[in-house]
Amino acid sequence: MTELTKLMKRRRSIRKYLKDKMVPEDILQKITNAAFYAPSAANMHGFEIVVVVNQDLKKKIREICEKGEQSWVFAQPENVKESILSLPNFSFQKSFLEEAPILLIVSTDQNNPKIPYAVESCWLSIAYMLLEIENNELGSLTYTPSICLTDKRDELNKIVNLPDSEYIQAILPIGYYENRPEPKELKNIKKKRIHRNKFIKNIEEE
Amino acid sequence: MTELTKLMKRRRSIRKYLKDKMVPEDILQKITNAAFYAPSAANMHGFEIVVVVNQDLKKKIREICEKGEQSWVFAQPENVKESILSLPNFSFQKSFLEEAPILLIVSTDQNNPKIPYAVESCWLSIAYMLLEIENNELGSLTYTPSICLTDKRDELNKIVNLPDSEYIQAILPIGYYENRPEPKELKNIKKKRIHRNKFIKNIEEE
Repeated sequence: MTELTKLMKRRRSIRKYLKDKMVPEDILQKITNAAFYAPSAANMHGFEIVVVVNQDLKKKIREICEKGEQSWVFAQPENVKESILSLPNFSFQKSFLEEAPILLIVSTDQNNPKIPYAVESCWLSIAYMLLEIENNELGSLTYTPSICLTDKRDELNKIVNLPDSEYIQAILPIGYYENRPEPKELKNIKKKRIHRNKFIKNIEEE
Repeated sequence: MTELTKLMKRRRSIRKYLKDKMVPEDILQKITNAAFYAPSAANMHGFEIVVVVNQDLKKKIREICEKGEQSWVFAQPENVKESILSLPNFSFQKSFLEEAPILLIVSTDQNNPKIPYAVESCWLSIAYMLLEIENNELGSLTYTPSICLTDKRDELNKIVNLPDSEYIQAILPIGYYENRPEPKELKNIKKKRIHRNKFIKNIEEE
């Protein structure tokens, strides 16, 4: 197995981080550099990354995200609400936002016609950062704050001075693994999702 | 420099592929496997991948994409049109769609409420595949067909039987490099896009 495949399998989303082990600055720099190595429409790299290390800010971010997620979930139709609440690992508690030594807030000005494919490009950069995080023996989670799906998303932006034109795509907590989960295994679902020349709907999946 | 960083820097978008060197099946499998190692909202991996090897299909895909892109570009406001036409490497000729031995068409049912963050997750998987492509000494391009931005996107879907509910996110041609460009270098823009605790607008950028 190649180094890359090992990294991809080893990288797991985690919610518990070693609280007192800080991420060295040079590693943090490698991680944010990775975002700029990713391809990007028209080579724009039209995203912003706010590196949050301040403990008071992290606490506020946690509070807003927890409150925002509750409001959002309970405003969903019954079936959506049920499916969210039944997700494994789901919790309204976002302790990782306060406990991880670093939060990377990644945003993009998604309605700006000067930045083509802003969201898509931003997520390529997020993937690159996730792999660079793992590459440095650190763990993360691709946290998408529900408040950003609502008309209160400016509350989260304000905490870190992001203008309203910036849409927060994800918050990546970064820290050392407290426990390492098993590496990822391929799911059976794969067979149903890969098609040869023509798409064929797999009826077993219905 | 680690293997991962080398891969990220070496991977460049290319439009010219060795025409007669086919991609071995086991490598193709590694590439599509990578899509399933990527994290995905609610662990759904809610995308479809059509692997196009058939030459007639590739030709049709090229024709539709070229025609679609012309219609789309010329329907844009003057300033948008100008900025597209002045992009380095821009051309209405999409020969890579016919010449690359493989096209991966990646789509997702982005309006399906059962697939949360469908587009975002799909692009994480695209990034993983791009790196796995490079990891196997192959080249690619993240091609986003403009026709998919229009009400004629079904024409492209139809060629490979994709239902209208599937939104094509990208077509990744895959093949061996004809020429390798220089590895990527970090752009100066990085400094302006990384903020500490609070976003600060960099006025030089205006």
